[in-house]
Amino acid sequence: MQAVSAPFTSDDYRARMGMAARAAAAEGLDGLLVTPGPDLVWLTGYQPTAITERLTLLVLRCDAEPQLLVPILEHPDAASAAGAGAVTIRDWRDGADPYAAAAPLLTADGEFAISDSAWAMHLLGLQSRLPKVRYSSITERLPMLRPVKDAAELARLEAAGAAADATFREIVKVRFAGRKETDVAADLARLLREFGHEQVDFTLVGSGPNGANPHHEAGDRTILTGDMVVLDFGGLMAGYGSDTTRTVCVGEPTAEMSEVHEIVRVAQQTAFEAVRPGVACQDIDRAARRIITEAGYGDEFIHRTGHGIGVTTHEPPYMVEGEVRPTVPGMCFSIEPGIYFAGRFGVRIEDIVTVTADGGRRFNDTDHGLAIVE
Amino acid sequence: MQAVSAPFTSDDYRARMGMAARAAAAEGLDGLLVTPGPDLVWLTGYQPTAITERLTLLVLRCDAEPQLLVPILEHPDAASAAGAGAVTIRDWRDGADPYAAAAPLLTADGEFAISDSAWAMHLLGLQSRLPKVRYSSITERLPMLRPVKDAAELARLEAAGAAADATFREIVKVRFAGRKETDVAADLARLLREFGHEQVDFTLVGSGPNGANPHHEAGDRTILTGDMVVLDFGGLMAGYGSDTTRTVCVGEPTAEMSEVHEIVRVAQQTAFEAVRPGVACQDIDRAARRIITEAGYGDEFIHRTGHGIGVTTHEPPYMVEGEVRPTVPGMCFSIEPGIYFAGRFGVRIEDIVTVTADGGRRFNDTDHGLAIVE
Repeated sequence: MQAVSAPFTSDDYRARMGMAARAAAAEGLDGLLVTPGPDLVWLTGYQPTAITERLTLLVLRCDAEPQLLVPILEHPDAASAAGAGAVTIRDWRDGADPYAAAAPLLTADGEFAISDSAWAMHLLGLQSRLPKVRYSSITERLPMLRPVKDAAELARLEAAGAAADATFREIVKVRFAGRKETDVAADLARLLREFGHEQVDFTLVGSGPNGANPHHEAGDRTILTGDMVVLDFGGLMAGYGSDTTRTVCVGEPTAEMSEVHEIVRVAQQTAFEAVRPGVACQDIDRAARRIITEAGYGDEFIHRTGHGIGVTTHEPPYMVEGEVRPTVPGMCFSIEPGIYFAGRFGVRIEDIVTVTADGGRRFNDTDHGLAIVE
Repeated sequence: MQAVSAPFTSDDYRARMGMAARAAAAEGLDGLLVTPGPDLVWLTGYQPTAITERLTLLVLRCDAEPQLLVPILEHPDAASAAGAGAVTIRDWRDGADPYAAAAPLLTADGEFAISDSAWAMHLLGLQSRLPKVRYSSITERLPMLRPVKDAAELARLEAAGAAADATFREIVKVRFAGRKETDVAADLARLLREFGHEQVDFTLVGSGPNGANPHHEAGDRTILTGDMVVLDFGGLMAGYGSDTTRTVCVGEPTAEMSEVHEIVRVAQQTAFEAVRPGVACQDIDRAARRIITEAGYGDEFIHRTGHGIGVTTHEPPYMVEGEVRPTVPGMCFSIEPGIYFAGRFGVRIEDIVTVTADGGRRFNDTDHGLAIVE
């Protein structure tokens, strides 16, 4: 297991905010409006206890120092964030108008991009207070801001991937038949923590027909011999995400199960081999989809091929038809094709992959063959 | 402990959606745009596994049946929600434009209110696709929609409050001195579950100086004899929230601690006695604040007096200066004044209160005196 890296410092966050402000300027924006969530964590290290209707807003401008507006009762938490030394913290008090407090931090007729997940209520409040400002979404305007990781981030993602792989190597040793999905899910969560994750985000265990629902978490169903079981799990380690999926069979698979698993394996491998700088995101989706479609299961591959990963386990960029932007070295995302037969079973294989100078490199490397469990 | 009530049915959700659509019409709106979160849970019983960038949107119109647009891979989950029988589910597939899918469900030049916590990205997408539609926030336009609870909801909130009280009566028996805040927090979480909560939302344990930060959760600090300890905990039971706070002292309090606790007790009681139909929310805040200000601690009461509670533990209406709307029978909210001395200690007392025909009734009734723990 790789040693956990040193925490990021105010200097690291200052550098990120500077880079973000310059990227905004290059895009013709006056600045960025960042609310709690992954953008704020990435830029300042600050994550409020809860995301509520109280406005917390980082204003990054190209022509001014970063300003973080927080509710007064969250001021102590904000001041103790890892990046607090790189921002000026301002606060507002319950009963005051937070949009009035925010307004002087913007330019009254500028153009700002706002965090995707900012509350509509806050955007409406700003639009009402500053009607001449033009607003757009950060992901639409600066899609390459967080997706391209630096060396310190890549090291964390690699370590998180290794911990997820260690989890998979242990989970295939536990008993499946006769236990509930939730029991195996609890094993996955325990193992992720044992191998260094500070946060478990999801432990999906989809046995038999439940595997045909890609968003099934884990339920009361008792796993039976003969079931295919989709295992999709991940979380955060040293602040960066893991996310891997393997499908296992409890006992001997049928010929159909083996055949479908092999199609998904080839689709995943083909998409991986398509990764290199300059390839459009949608081409990675197409590479996987072509294999599955040609095998006759195109209608059963009901989701996109992948999503980015970083300070969250699910973020831009998306490997999906219509995403024409190119992949860039340092970008990290999942490749996770699947085939789903409603009421019967599903198969999915997922690795996190990073784009290198001349191709792709996996952060997950457990075997892609169909593992047999007991 | 009160028996858990029967689950809500499609008929219950149909009635709520009808009521919401009529309220929207009365407000001059063409309809409501509801995204995942408490509004959607309340109206349909549907809560996606995760709230992501994929658009899920309930469109409630006064002149049409309810339509729920979901990503295709979430269709099975949506179809199994308790209120699914009362909506028509439509889906969109990765790679398609979700705003194009949503547009025909709206009127092209209408006026719609959208969930407070809808993602800004989705609002910007709708604004771009339907530029003639006027948008506002649900809480601004229909502030009384969810706050006023019916009998079935009041029964759930009362049961959740009783379970939180049972938790408090047990927690004062555990050892505090020499244990970490996180140990006591784990006890609180265990007790809430034992007394029937299916979800624990927060277990704040603020000992000594940590009690002076109202949003401090629970940390590694070892609790000492002589500490004041703020205990603020709650979660969901049968889908409805609990939230109560008591401040206890480990061993004998100083004269100052007893005096400050007594001021907060009187402030809480005075605010409670101010509750009756027609009183403005801000008057309940003022009632508590006047007591604390007259005692000389106005600057140390750094948050509003309360917040609503229902399918979440924290929602409108807010008991805060500037909230001039009147309280209404069936409304449920916290009354939780506090005094905070940075670096030393804090005191807060909180009950959930419902407005009755002629006053207020508490859903928490553990003793308001300063409890001594070991």
